[in-house]
This record gives sequence, structure tokens and C-alpha cells, in this order.
Amino acid sequence: MNKSGVTLGIDIGGTNTSMAIVDKDGNIIAKDSIATLAMDPAADLFKRLFNKFTEIYSPLREKFELIGVGIGAPNANYYNGTVENPPNLNWGVVDIVALVKEYYDLPVAVTNDANAAALGEMKFGVAKGMKNFIQITLGTGLGSGIVVNGEMLYGADGFAGEMGHTIVVKDGRKCGCGRRGCLETYASASGIKRTAFELLADSTEKSTLRGISFNDLTSKNIYDAAMAGDKVAQSAFKNTGKILGQAMADAVAYLSPEAFVLFGGLANSGELIIEPTRKYLENNLLSNYRGKIKILQSGLPEGDAAVLGAAALIWHELSIIPQ
Amino acid sequence: MNKSGVTLGIDIGGTNTSMAIVDKDGNIIAKDSIATLAMDPAADLFKRLFNKFTEIYSPLREKFELIGVGIGAPNANYYNGTVENPPNLNWGVVDIVALVKEYYDLPVAVTNDANAAALGEMKFGVAKGMKNFIQITLGTGLGSGIVVNGEMLYGADGFAGEMGHTIVVKDGRKCGCGRRGCLETYASASGIKRTAFELLADSTEKSTLRGISFNDLTSKNIYDAAMAGDKVAQSAFKNTGKILGQAMADAVAYLSPEAFVLFGGLANSGELIIEPTRKYLENNLLSNYRGKIKILQSGLPEGDAAVLGAAALIWHELSIIPQ
Repeated sequence: MNKSGVTLGIDIGGTNTSMAIVDKDGNIIAKDSIATLAMDPAADLFKRLFNKFTEIYSPLREKFELIGVGIGAPNANYYNGTVENPPNLNWGVVDIVALVKEYYDLPVAVTNDANAAALGEMKFGVAKGMKNFIQITLGTGLGSGIVVNGEMLYGADGFAGEMGHTIVVKDGRKCGCGRRGCLETYASASGIKRTAFELLADSTEKSTLRGISFNDLTSKNIYDAAMAGDKVAQSAFKNTGKILGQAMADAVAYLSPEAFVLFGGLANSGELIIEPTRKYLENNLLSNYRGKIKILQSGLPEGDAAVLGAAALIWHELSIIPQ
Repeated sequence: MNKSGVTLGIDIGGTNTSMAIVDKDGNIIAKDSIATLAMDPAADLFKRLFNKFTEIYSPLREKFELIGVGIGAPNANYYNGTVENPPNLNWGVVDIVALVKEYYDLPVAVTNDANAAALGEMKFGVAKGMKNFIQITLGTGLGSGIVVNGEMLYGADGFAGEMGHTIVVKDGRKCGCGRRGCLETYASASGIKRTAFELLADSTEKSTLRGISFNDLTSKNIYDAAMAGDKVAQSAFKNTGKILGQAMADAVAYLSPEAFVLFGGLANSGELIIEPTRKYLENNLLSNYRGKIKILQSGLPEGDAAVLGAAALIWHELSIIPQ
């Protein structure tokens, strides 16, 4: 019997590391996850990871053949196959590709989470068939992956596509990167919290958000309040969409994408965030682009998107490297 | 005797149309130019153009063989081979590739002036061998061409790379595109004029520029005044470089280029413009890019750069299309 080829997608997070065995159409054949244990060396993680993988792969070996491994990880460098000083892991610089090849001598590719997410959309999601689009993950920060002419945009050093670190407000909010005014300090789950607090300080409007501390406040609280008619919460969404839409118009001038794909907690707020984003995108577009740029919500299941993206990375590599 | 292959580079301007016969190393074998006559149909221009070309090519036919035609033109669409409603020409939409093929049934490619300039730098200029860089022409406006992974960035509709129309000042200066605050209203020959006038209005500083009307003022006047120690003129350069450098830092976050190549009248002001541009680029870069991004001045002769770029376009096409 001919076995079908499958890939292993791995998503390394600060807390958990997920893995999934994925076929070429994006079907998950099996999946599992383990604790990352951020203080331990990377080699230990991969030992535990491949122990777990052997467990889930063994019963499938007769039907499926592993043909490649894709990895999404923070601060991953596609060109070098390394992860370089990830903020949440005590790793330093690690040659991830070499670590994997100790277990399986197969094609291996690594990229950061945002690029993996974009590849997931291109291979298995709403961007299927698109050659030019921008994927934006509105999570704690703003991650973005840019696809140009059917390929990921990595740039000269492998770190291109950092739309979240374009500066949208001169001398604006302090960013984790050390600068001020980055897009992700406004358009992200933590950005909308900061916006809500600014609005609470600025106005005298009644708001249920006045009863929640900064530490306790979540973008879900703001969403719930906005849906219940809270004016401050609604303004927080409007202001967030305004800044995001303006930034997206600049991205269009640079990149001429067919679409933006939005993913992540804040993107799940649906029209609350998309309506103002679309409005300010349109208002700020060069005239030849007006009415032409799609804003799409990711259709990938939130829990699986990261491993699907990692698997998509290696499926994409396998499709362009002659076998 | 084996003939050497040459290409014809054509640069269509609002006033003059230039042509050059160019070998694969960027040597100009022959060149000439004719009046564009902007009110006449495109077909008439190409008739006169190929008459002139026959004149210069005839004595060369024994040694050289024409193998392709590249064209740089305003509002040119690489994908369609068309020029679409160019602002300075009474053409409407014209299929330029078809027009050329009436004379020579050879590979023909067309793109806008800014992209041609980038290709010229990549094939024959200071960006030779680079795979990721951004070419910026500081002329009346700001044109830019982006090279990603060794290829021009055209985007979904062929018009990508409009850095001059990213919005750098909210509700800023009125732009020819109908919007406000575009980079080219600040960083260009006309932008620095507007900046000088703003400074003359704002300060009480003595300046030789106070004796020149807006219509008469040129960026060359501002350059001469700055070199002679005029404070207002020097500030105009500083402010221009500041906005340009900040915008370039955002371009780096998107694209991770190896270098910027500056071309055009204002770029010829040398360190007067480059020093503040470099300073504000560095100040605004993500930390992993600091000290790594080159700012280069084009080395192509100003009068030939446009036809060399057009020739580079078709040389590049010929290098990627199997013969």
C-alpha cells in the first residue's frame, strides 16, 4: 500500500508547545501538546517533544509517512534555521533545524509565528490561491506576515514583515521594543486596553469599565461592554480601527496586497473592529485602490491555527524544492 | 561573426522621450531622444521613435543584434503591458507592448520610471548583487522601487512600491493624489520648497531665500543657500531628512532591505540631505537593524539613468525567461 505523506507542524510557545500531524489539505491526523518549560534548554524540549510525537505517530505509521517538519517559534530566523534570544525562553541562540535533524533527517523549516500564520492562511485558509496578501494577528501584540508573489517576504535578514513595529504616532505610546508609537501599542489586545484607559481618563462618560483595574481588564471585557452599549468601550474599538485602518492604507501603498486577513482575539470582535478599520482604510487609500482591498477574517480554528501554519510552512517548502 | 545581443531602453517623459541601445553590462552603444509631443496619440510617438531608432541602429546592425525592448513610462502597468491615463500625456489607456511589437516582434516589458530606476541600480549600479533594497528618486515627487528577493515588487495590481504616498503627517500637506500628508509632499524637490516657505513664515531669521518667490524658488537655490551658511536653508534640509529618515525606518520594518539607494536632484545635495536622513533612520529603527542599513547614492549618470533602467528591465526579464 502507498503511504500518504504527512508533515509535522510544531508551534513553540512560552507556556505550551503544540504539535500536529497534517496532510497536504490541512487535515489534522493527530495532535498533542506538552509544557514548554521555558527555563530548560531547547534540547530537552525537543527530546520530550519527539517522545510524545512517537506516541501519536506509531499507530499511524502504516498509513502515513512523515516527509517534513515545520516549526513556528518566537524570534525564529528562516534563513539560518535558528531561534535567536526568544523573549520568553531561556535559550539564547539555538539551531532548531539541527536539533530536529537529530531525530528525523527530513526537510525542516522554521519561521516566526506571524509568518507561519500567513502560510497557514495561504495553504489552508481564506487566502488560498492568493499571491499577495497581509496576515495580521491581533493578539497581545500585533504580528504580521506578508506574502508577495506567492512567497513569504523575509527580506535581507529574515525579519521582514514587522508591521506592528511601524511607528504610527510620533512620540506615542511606549512599546516593548524600546521605541514609542508603534502600531502594536494601539492595535492589539493590550493596545485597546490602553485606549480604553485613555478614554476613561479623558471623558466623564459612565462606563462599566470604570470598575475594572488595568491588570484585570481584558479585550473581552471591552468587547462585552461595547456589545452592551457602553459608549467608552465602543469608542475604544472605533479608535483602534481608525489607527489600524490608516496603517493598512500605508501598507497598501508599499505592497499592493489583494487582501488583509485578520486573526486573533481582537479580530474575533467581528464588525466592532472591522467596520472602523474598513472605513479608515478606505478613507486613506490611494484612489486607484478604493473599494478593491478585501478585509477577511481568518477561518482557521483558533486552537489549531499555529500548528497548521507551521505545517503549511514545510508543505510550502516541499512544493518549491524539487523532490 | 557572432553578433552581441543588445536591448533598447526607452524612457517616455512628458516632454522628451529618450532611447539607448544598451549591452548586458550597461554600456550605452548609441542613444538619442525625440520630443514626446504629449497631445499626440501614442502610436505617432512610436512611429517617430522607431524611425529615429532605425537611424541609430542601422550602422550597428552588423555587430549587434536587438533582442528585447524595455520601457519606463508614467502610470505603466507591468502586468498588462499598458500605460494607463498618464497625467502628462493625452493617451488614455494604451497597450504599449502591442505598439512596440508592430515594429519588433521581440520580448518587450514596461514598468513605471521608479521601478525602472531600481532595476537600473540592481543590474548596472550601486545595488548590483543586492536582493533586497529600496530605490528612492527624490525628484519633483518621490518615486520608489522596491526589490524583494531579487525581483521587483509589483503587488497584486502592478502598482506596489509607492512609498511617496504613505501618509507620514496626519492632516498634513495637500498632495497631488488628493490626500494629505504623503511623504512626497515633504521629501522631494517640491517638498523642500514647501518646508523652506514654512520656515520663512515661522521664523524671523534672515535668509537669502526671502528674496525669491515660491514660483522661482528651486531646491538648487536652497542647496546653494545652505552651503553658504543660510540657517533657514540648512533647517529645510534637516527637516526634510528627518521626515525621510523616519519613513525609511518604517520601510525597514516592512521590508528588511539591505540598503536604500537615493537618486535625483535632491539626492545630489549629498551629506546635506543624507546626514539628517541617516540620523533619523537610525533613531527610529528597530534595534536589530541599527547600524546595518546602508544609504547609498546612485552612481548612474543622471542623464542616462532612465534609459539604463528601462534597458535593465528587459535584461532582467531575459535573464529569468528561458530563451
